[in-house]
This record gives sequence, structure tokens and C-alpha cells, in this order.
Amino acid sequence: MNLIIRIAEREDMKSVLLLINELAEFERETDVVNLTYDDLIRDGFSDPPLFVCFVAVLNNQIVGMSLSYSRYSTWKGKTMHLEDLIVTEKERGTGIGNALFSNFIKYSHSKGVKRIEWAVLNWNINAIKFYESKGAVVYDDWHIAQMNETAIKNFISNK
Amino acid sequence: MNLIIRIAEREDMKSVLLLINELAEFERETDVVNLTYDDLIRDGFSDPPLFVCFVAVLNNQIVGMSLSYSRYSTWKGKTMHLEDLIVTEKERGTGIGNALFSNFIKYSHSKGVKRIEWAVLNWNINAIKFYESKGAVVYDDWHIAQMNETAIKNFISNK
Repeated sequence: MNLIIRIAEREDMKSVLLLINELAEFERETDVVNLTYDDLIRDGFSDPPLFVCFVAVLNNQIVGMSLSYSRYSTWKGKTMHLEDLIVTEKERGTGIGNALFSNFIKYSHSKGVKRIEWAVLNWNINAIKFYESKGAVVYDDWHIAQMNETAIKNFISNK
Repeated sequence: MNLIIRIAEREDMKSVLLLINELAEFERETDVVNLTYDDLIRDGFSDPPLFVCFVAVLNNQIVGMSLSYSRYSTWKGKTMHLEDLIVTEKERGTGIGNALFSNFIKYSHSKGVKRIEWAVLNWNINAIKFYESKGAVVYDDWHIAQMNETAIKNFISNK
């Protein structure tokens, strides 16, 4: 298998956006991806960039990606967050996800962070088992709270 | 009540660290705060800073703080994450948390983000009710996965 994991370049963002849309469908969500190709170029290649993206290239085709950025823990200091790890459906189960995950951990370790973190859907048992097999702990006592654009605007206009 | 919410300065970090330790106790965790005063100075006042901190000052005393940073959603683009919102125990219930939260939302709105996000412990019913009253949605179908320093090192050395 001729697989290369490398840092993404501007011209890879079209393939990256296709993978993002594919994952949204897998997560049973549609019409949620507002992000455009131009957004990815602007945000991923600014100074400083808002994220770091790696792509998995199999026989010259992009078949997977990881997208991450740093966060901050008031207990541990600088941490890394894995926002997405995506392998296109027909290439799953071939070790590409493993290679992308391993690359992400090594990259984070090279940045000296003391914690790596990400979110996983509670019904995605395969993913949870995969992560636990890698030494991750999956916590079910934390909930994620979000305000979307409408909620933010409502809050502001009610003040 | 002579309450001022303002952006934190270097010399506020001692009070901020005291608040961080107070929250760790409230969350039933001890010996988890590895962060030092020097870490907070280095990370919060670097270029770019790793977080933005606001303090609540009541009669010239720091009684609360919010600490946040930007994240990135592959659906929405740049988002804001509220890592901590802390009010010292004896000043709770007096509107200071509300003022810090409101300040954080306005700050995030000024940055043009389309989503604001944070984590809440599932047994912290008062916090969940407070957030929902502000228009937030609390999701229970996402779990948080983490690898700590030991898990990262084990992973690296097994490769």
C-alpha cells in the first residue's frame, strides 16, 4: 500500500472539504456544513493558522485527513484538540485511520502538550473502542453546551 | 455594587490561579492543577496569546474570571470556547457570573464567531439550567475522549 501522510497544502482543501461533507452525512447531519473552500484556505494558511491539517494520500489520491488545533487547560496548560479524523468510506478498515491517528499523536507530542482531547458520538462504538485501545479515556460525565449564531444574536439583542 | 469586568493583566494571574484551584475543589478534583503562575504569564501574554482572560473586580478585589480561546469547527469555521467561568464561593448568587458570561458572549460576538461552546459536568444542574436559560443547548450524545501525558508517552514508545 503506497500511503503517505503529509501536511496539507492549499490545493488539498477541495478534497478536505469533500471529506468534511462525507463525515457530516455519516454523523446523520445534513445542511450543517457552512464552511467553504475559501474559508479553509483563509483560516488554515493565515499567520497564525487556525488549524493544522494532515492528509492521507493513497496512490496519489487524498483518502483521509486529520484536522487539529491547540487548546488550553487551566489544569495542564497547552493541549491539542483533534477536531476531525476522516477516512473516505471505501478505504475504511485498511489502517489509514490508524496511520492518521498515530501521526496526530506524534505531532502533538512534538509540540510538548500534556493532554490530547477530542469528542466522540456515544453511539459510535467502533470509534470509542478504537480510541480506548490507544490508551484514551472516554468520559461520559461531561456534556457539551453550545450557542449557535441565532442564540448569540438573541442574547446580544436582549441585553 | 461596584463591579468592573475588565481584561486581565499579568499581575492578576495570582488571583486567577487561586480561582482555578478553588474550581478544581468544587469539581471534586484535587492535585490536578499542574499550572503555575509563570505558565499563565507565559501563555496568556505571548504573541499570539493561548487564551484571553477577563476578571471581575468587586471593590478592588478579583472575585471571578472567565478564560476562553478560539477553536475551529469544520462545519462553521472559527468558534469560541469558554474553558472556565469562576466566581469565588462567597460571591456566588450576586450576578457576577451573569456579568462574566454576558461579557464573554459580547466579546465572542465582536470576534464574529458563529458558535460558542463549553463543557459542563452532568451533575451541575444549576449550571445547566443557567446556560439553557441563556439560549444554550446542552448535548448529551457527545463524549469527551482524552489522552493524558502518560497515555501519550506509552503510545509513542509502543510505536
